Amino acid sequence: MGNLLVAQSGGPTVAINSTLLGVYKASKNKVDKVYGARYGIKGLLEKNIYDLSKLLNGNNENLLKQTPASALASCRQKLSDSSKSTEQYEKIIKIFKDFDINYFVYIGGNDSMDTVNKISQYIKYSNISDIIVVGAPKTIDNDLVLTDHCPGFGSAAKYIATTISELERDCSIYPIPSITLVEIMGRDAGWLTAASALSRLNGAKGPSLIYCCEKTFCIDKFLKDIESKMKGYSNGIVIVLSEGIHDKDGKYISEYVNEPFMDEFGHKQNAGAARVLEKVVRSTFGCKVRALEINLMQRSAAHITSLTDIEESIKVGQKAVQCALSGMCGEMSTIIRKSNRPYEVEYSSANTSLIANKVRYLPDDMISKDGNDVTNKAIDYLKPLIQGELKIKYNNGIPLHLDLFKNIE
Amino acid sequence: MGNLLVAQSGGPTVAINSTLLGVYKASKNKVDKVYGARYGIKGLLEKNIYDLSKLLNGNNENLLKQTPASALASCRQKLSDSSKSTEQYEKIIKIFKDFDINYFVYIGGNDSMDTVNKISQYIKYSNISDIIVVGAPKTIDNDLVLTDHCPGFGSAAKYIATTISELERDCSIYPIPSITLVEIMGRDAGWLTAASALSRLNGAKGPSLIYCCEKTFCIDKFLKDIESKMKGYSNGIVIVLSEGIHDKDGKYISEYVNEPFMDEFGHKQNAGAARVLEKVVRSTFGCKVRALEINLMQRSAAHITSLTDIEESIKVGQKAVQCALSGMCGEMSTIIRKSNRPYEVEYSSANTSLIANKVRYLPDDMISKDGNDVTNKAIDYLKPLIQGELKIKYNNGIPLHLDLFKNIE
Repeated sequence: MGNLLVAQSGGPTVAINSTLLGVYKASKNKVDKVYGARYGIKGLLEKNIYDLSKLLNGNNENLLKQTPASALASCRQKLSDSSKSTEQYEKIIKIFKDFDINYFVYIGGNDSMDTVNKISQYIKYSNISDIIVVGAPKTIDNDLVLTDHCPGFGSAAKYIATTISELERDCSIYPIPSITLVEIMGRDAGWLTAASALSRLNGAKGPSLIYCCEKTFCIDKFLKDIESKMKGYSNGIVIVLSEGIHDKDGKYISEYVNEPFMDEFGHKQNAGAARVLEKVVRSTFGCKVRALEINLMQRSAAHITSLTDIEESIKVGQKAVQCALSGMCGEMSTIIRKSNRPYEVEYSSANTSLIANKVRYLPDDMISKDGNDVTNKAIDYLKPLIQGELKIKYNNGIPLHLDLFKNIE
Repeated sequence: MGNLLVAQSGGPTVAINSTLLGVYKASKNKVDKVYGARYGIKGLLEKNIYDLSKLLNGNNENLLKQTPASALASCRQKLSDSSKSTEQYEKIIKIFKDFDINYFVYIGGNDSMDTVNKISQYIKYSNISDIIVVGAPKTIDNDLVLTDHCPGFGSAAKYIATTISELERDCSIYPIPSITLVEIMGRDAGWLTAASALSRLNGAKGPSLIYCCEKTFCIDKFLKDIESKMKGYSNGIVIVLSEGIHDKDGKYISEYVNEPFMDEFGHKQNAGAARVLEKVVRSTFGCKVRALEINLMQRSAAHITSLTDIEESIKVGQKAVQCALSGMCGEMSTIIRKSNRPYEVEYSSANTSLIANKVRYLPDDMISKDGNDVTNKAIDYLKPLIQGELKIKYNNGIPLHLDLFKNIE
């Protein structure tokens, strides 16, 4: 049967450990041993490899579903181009042989799929037949191509929808005008920013304006948009924008910090887009203006997750194992949406050579014509992904997390 | 019997509506009508007054427990000094008479207790015998005197403990050193900052350093503290600090933005303490350094609340009504802790003349000698306040909130 190795990579999500659980459960009776590499491909290269059955068992494995960030830790390491140097690849194959590893599942985002693609290409060209490498997706950015959506996104979207609904109430209780600018993660794709509109699902006002980074951002138009929203309105409004909003020349708004009219700022490294816009909005409208970033919380808030996302993340891990056991080297498991009402998906796979280093943007028909909100099509797409709540197990008043390496260090 | 009027004031908490629920339930069969003033004392002065029985009923009243910010909206308005002008007071008494109001319950923090105190003093000196004014506390800052703790604090503490435990995992997954500075609300008192230590309750590492604003903050000592924590440690650490940390001259660290060694910054209005320290930490240690603020989320995250806090907040509202009905003009309901293990409290009251405009600081014996952590005494005090979880009702994937004025506008 041989052994299977799993590792995690890239930035944290709250669902990446559910995919690890799916990989573990789907493989533990199908292979001799299930190994986990700590610190992704970097740890693998350093033989930082553990027998997962010694770390996971029926008592603790369900805690993976509520543990944020990668339980196996992570890395940000790109493999070298194998046409230039095969050293890393030879080392990886040697380690696979040493540990009798026939299957390697790498859970991660775009860079991780690049790693899967590169190793599988090397295996192919080296005529290695007994090692199968596959990928399982994760990213809160939801920007991988060839999958309807990405594990981790639904929970981040639920956290954002909930948080914006709470902030909107917070900002509207005083009978005086105010403007709160909320910056949401997404340098290239505005999926998470769009999810802020879900805060309206129960009838609340939600964000008054939404700016996704797919559209050119024009400060003059932005100020006019605000003016029209403030007219006749005497409470606070919330405006949501992607960190990656940029002007017609592709320059990020966060890089405007040194522009003359932004002269209150020092250097760009200390300002995000919302913070840069805070001053120009304040000087234009003369009311209370706040800029805030949801920051790391949107990718690590495991205390509120979408049950749909958690369950799908497990299945995406199981599907990756199926691909590996079927010999589909270089594939990444994917989610295909069959229907919105009722929401139905099936699991499939696509080759990482078609996925790595590509970005899936929010399509034009999900952004309003004015470029300052999302369409019903976006809501129809997003809404199913945040449904259901994982029941969180608490201890001492805080959620329990699983530390896989607690007894090892 | 006469009527009772309730209003809410000051900044949002996630428990202030539980106190409103307590007030409503304790009074609805004891008085003729329960009125609510919208926008606090400001709304009262504008006769923005509603019959609460038309807005609240058995179907929706429990949603108050999971609705953040003031359901009756709020204001930040201080009453004038009645020795200089009695106009506002005469107007308030006239409105009370017009609406047959014998009892007024004001839910709020320090400024609101100042309002209760001022009106009750005016009533006393004017020999008005049929109007009783009382207060019910709320503040995430936990800084009101003469009460063991304040409604709203326990839930904010639970949110902070949970969020820091999530951030600590998020920041420690890469095998490279990094420093994340997290700024927590609290200009004068460090109770919320101290609550970050509760993230360790289940064995996690939690914050490596904790700086409360009660202690003088010295940048040199801070950098030495970090150096000793980073020694031999190759992952990310999290450092928590109060927004109000200040130097030995009382100057806020957030005001250091124009200091020569901080010259990357523009003007102080755009920087908090963490952001100011970010640069000096980065230039000293040369690793990845991030500054983040938990911002408004810590006072509005109604999706995760302490059941202990919610239940106590209801009882504090009930107690305020009892005080009012017993004719105890000028009192604020309070919580007295009887025991830590088992945790037991009783409800009492104290005169707002002894509470208004005072601040309760984190005592010395709750801060470690080095001034960079909290003591076990702090943990013993804080831990009971975050216990239990309110079961949140969701609809469409996000928590339901109650909008009292939805059908009125």
